[in-house]
Amino acid sequence: MKRLRQITVVGLGLLGGSVALAVLRTMPGVRIVGYSHRPVTRRKARQLGVADVVVDSLTEGVERADIVILATPILTFENIFKEICGALPSGCIVTDVGSTKVQAHRWAERILPKSVYYVGSHPIAGSEQRGVEFARDDLFEGTTCILTATKRTSSEAVRRVKEFWGKLGCSIRLMDPSVHDRILADVSHLPHTMAAALVNASDTEEMKLAGQGFIDASRIASGPANIWADILLTNSGNTRRAIGRVVKELEKLQKAISNGDERKIRELLDKARKKRSELIKYKMRHREIS
Amino acid sequence: MKRLRQITVVGLGLLGGSVALAVLRTMPGVRIVGYSHRPVTRRKARQLGVADVVVDSLTEGVERADIVILATPILTFENIFKEICGALPSGCIVTDVGSTKVQAHRWAERILPKSVYYVGSHPIAGSEQRGVEFARDDLFEGTTCILTATKRTSSEAVRRVKEFWGKLGCSIRLMDPSVHDRILADVSHLPHTMAAALVNASDTEEMKLAGQGFIDASRIASGPANIWADILLTNSGNTRRAIGRVVKELEKLQKAISNGDERKIRELLDKARKKRSELIKYKMRHREIS
Repeated sequence: MKRLRQITVVGLGLLGGSVALAVLRTMPGVRIVGYSHRPVTRRKARQLGVADVVVDSLTEGVERADIVILATPILTFENIFKEICGALPSGCIVTDVGSTKVQAHRWAERILPKSVYYVGSHPIAGSEQRGVEFARDDLFEGTTCILTATKRTSSEAVRRVKEFWGKLGCSIRLMDPSVHDRILADVSHLPHTMAAALVNASDTEEMKLAGQGFIDASRIASGPANIWADILLTNSGNTRRAIGRVVKELEKLQKAISNGDERKIRELLDKARKKRSELIKYKMRHREIS
Repeated sequence: MKRLRQITVVGLGLLGGSVALAVLRTMPGVRIVGYSHRPVTRRKARQLGVADVVVDSLTEGVERADIVILATPILTFENIFKEICGALPSGCIVTDVGSTKVQAHRWAERILPKSVYYVGSHPIAGSEQRGVEFARDDLFEGTTCILTATKRTSSEAVRRVKEFWGKLGCSIRLMDPSVHDRILADVSHLPHTMAAALVNASDTEEMKLAGQGFIDASRIASGPANIWADILLTNSGNTRRAIGRVVKELEKLQKAISNGDERKIRELLDKARKKRSELIKYKMRHREIS
């Protein structure tokens, strides 16, 4: 197997910056190259020293890379693939940190040359913050990174991407992109739309009386709108169905409340309490939360 | 004004226990009496020393009280009022820590004698934890306590209850019980039903892949089902309407996602992001969160 000499990160926000910093810390001897299309971000990234070098040209940035990692909004992938496809060295692995995977695999298959390998990555990490100034070299420690592969994906490339995220502290799950997108619609994209709907349904003055419950329930509504719009647009069918399911659950509760049906209300609340309690136990056992 | 000599807390869970501990710390010279209908809770409360004395009889517990504070599920208030009404000393103030207020005022008006005063209290504090073992003497520090009064409520009693919560570290808001219940349906009871609906709509296996967003969005679903059933049952009209409003917002997002309407999705997400950002700024300015 080829020795890993250079990793190029395209997009230097919270995630891209954190990948770069984590490589600097965990992979001495590997050159980390960063690129952002925004001059102001490149300047900040240089000041913060998140990479060995921050380049002004995307194609120059990737031409010696062993692994290229896209950390930009998903709807930019198509154009970035087109822009870099001529510059990627043979044998190079392309991956990304996007939150939906079906569309990324489609573009990769259509645009990238046969001489390079695409594997999808989705590290379940991040926060509602954005920008390279929030990047941390330990953002991925103890998190799960889902890798996605189709029948046509090179298993050697999967092995190398697995090794890469493993060094950054992730546990790895491998799955088909369509399974990934269905599950993530339920556990991530749905709660995001719910947080936004809760805030949008609330009165600005009334919200001032909200306690910690509302603050926590709405936290992810503070996430960047452009990144989340791309996620919802590239996972529309699954997210639409997930919203439909939660609306049904809300209407069950609404009906029980309207009917003053104490037994039913308790049953629904108790079911949720028990399910969440099992989830928290699982997460603590796996040290994903403390 | 009569000097405050004894406060009796009925119900020694997280909230009742915390009221008792906070009085012990902040009001030296005031005798704090605790009661729980469960022998096991009384035993734990004695072991933990949350009150000067934990009594086995409710009526004995209140017969010398200057202030009686109910910290039990709301649907128990009617019977507790009936049980204590003959034992309450003249001039005594009765209040509670319940999350809905219209029904409590109605029961108080119908059952309590003219010689005692009822004022509603709702300290916006607590957590998804339950039980006297989680009680803390600083639970109310820096929180808001809403007091509720009708046209018939004694303003002298309101003044004394205000002073009481002020000593425990609360900022006070005074409002009509019906206004309280409408606002709290929106900012508290609605997010609670949403957290429960999210968990109930989720697959147990899939949830294991959930990240911090799901964990935070669902946290309040771990609250005690009996207490929350009482809250929803005594605020059914407002909560039903609040659920209706959030379902409309979810359906707006669902429609925009189905239509691939990027502009509309961004607009809805951005509106939520901005509204929440204003809320967080307000809460930080008022030191309610850090």
